[in-house]
Amino acid sequence: MKLLLKLGFLGTAYAGYQVQNNAETVQGKLNEATEKVFGFPCDIVGCSRTDSGVHARCFYATVAGRGQSDLSTTVPLDKIPTALNCMLPGDISVYEARWVGADFHARYSVRSKEYEYLIWNGSQKNPFLADRACLRQRPVTEKQLRDMEKAAHLMIGKHDFSSFMAAGSKITDPVRTVFDADVRREGDMIVFRVSADGFLYHMVRIMAGTLLEVADGKRAPMDITALIEAKDRTAAGPTAPAGGLYLNQVNYNKEDLTDA
Amino acid sequence: MKLLLKLGFLGTAYAGYQVQNNAETVQGKLNEATEKVFGFPCDIVGCSRTDSGVHARCFYATVAGRGQSDLSTTVPLDKIPTALNCMLPGDISVYEARWVGADFHARYSVRSKEYEYLIWNGSQKNPFLADRACLRQRPVTEKQLRDMEKAAHLMIGKHDFSSFMAAGSKITDPVRTVFDADVRREGDMIVFRVSADGFLYHMVRIMAGTLLEVADGKRAPMDITALIEAKDRTAAGPTAPAGGLYLNQVNYNKEDLTDA
Repeated sequence: MKLLLKLGFLGTAYAGYQVQNNAETVQGKLNEATEKVFGFPCDIVGCSRTDSGVHARCFYATVAGRGQSDLSTTVPLDKIPTALNCMLPGDISVYEARWVGADFHARYSVRSKEYEYLIWNGSQKNPFLADRACLRQRPVTEKQLRDMEKAAHLMIGKHDFSSFMAAGSKITDPVRTVFDADVRREGDMIVFRVSADGFLYHMVRIMAGTLLEVADGKRAPMDITALIEAKDRTAAGPTAPAGGLYLNQVNYNKEDLTDA
Repeated sequence: MKLLLKLGFLGTAYAGYQVQNNAETVQGKLNEATEKVFGFPCDIVGCSRTDSGVHARCFYATVAGRGQSDLSTTVPLDKIPTALNCMLPGDISVYEARWVGADFHARYSVRSKEYEYLIWNGSQKNPFLADRACLRQRPVTEKQLRDMEKAAHLMIGKHDFSSFMAAGSKITDPVRTVFDADVRREGDMIVFRVSADGFLYHMVRIMAGTLLEVADGKRAPMDITALIEAKDRTAAGPTAPAGGLYLNQVNYNKEDLTDA
């Protein structure tokens, strides 16, 4: 059996989740912490690659012995989160640990994910949201907010999302099913939430950048349909800053999560 | 006339407010931004020194020409906050600008200040509060919270607060009047708020560290009185981490704030 960890992290200090040479990454920190707690090097597989500066309120990663499909440890399951948290920096937290079958794959077994993109629309620059929300100083009116909502709703469905994929991405099948997409005002924050069976590289950030152009009146909400049909990255808006993006939920099939 | 700025900042990236050689400070950033906006070097005087990593929701600083008691500029007053914010990093924000008389002093004219100390008491380590709250994993019970409240209340009044002053501090008059001190639970956060006519070096952090010992049962609430009377730093608890501390309010006399 492998260990499945549920994590959260603030991405500001990291060059993304995925391990890299000469850069601090969340996976790199997990490698160090698991080796200290279990006493041997481990293979860590995450549920998603995340960009540099992107945050996660929910993130899953499996842990097995290096080159193995199992983890062998005498550390009691209920002590593992605290033991790892003591070894991890303050901006990475292990919330839960459970056992899963050796054939469970943190990335391939994912059924759906939800992201949230935060746009700060307060009247004043908020120093406590630096790198935690995209800042938009001009007030978004109710009409502009409704336009953003309509545009977001037109993103729902099974589409070729090539227009919302970073140029140069190597993904060969750009078809994804967006289950839900919505825009809400929550106090001074404008929140874009989107769930799908999977996401292309930079997809949510390009969606957010495009919705900000809708708010600006540069695009009509109904233009989204033609934009998707164009299958062309240059048809969409800019990539919104990484700091506004949060991986919010990751869902697996219940049967996959049943202990082996 | 001098310019009085109302600011907020996240202190995590800074070696405190006060300018230093070879370290990033809030004042250093203000020096750079004001020189860019006004076109000449300025003298900046802050309302308080803050420790490395301490935050401010409210902070005042005056701006005058270097070596002068006035600021001469053609930049309209209502454009100054935005102009400065464009030059400042995301974790420092200018909220307001106003004119004050040349004899106004950002520090000496302060009548009272309020600090807040945040203690995260959620059941899980919160990666989004790293360097923004002191973490205390063990749940604080209602009885322990009431003990912290009682201890905080005993800090109110005019006292020699030497016991709550960092060793080696050069302040010669350690008498301060604490107007209010209270502890509240706000969701998973325990909030200690204290207002006074002035604070000694590390005073709020030592108060917070002492209140945490009260929560732990290491001290009885009523011990605070003897602790103050001891006038001895070693009688109090440890200095709580800087990241939990926020300068919350700074009050001046209304007449001092009247435009010259």
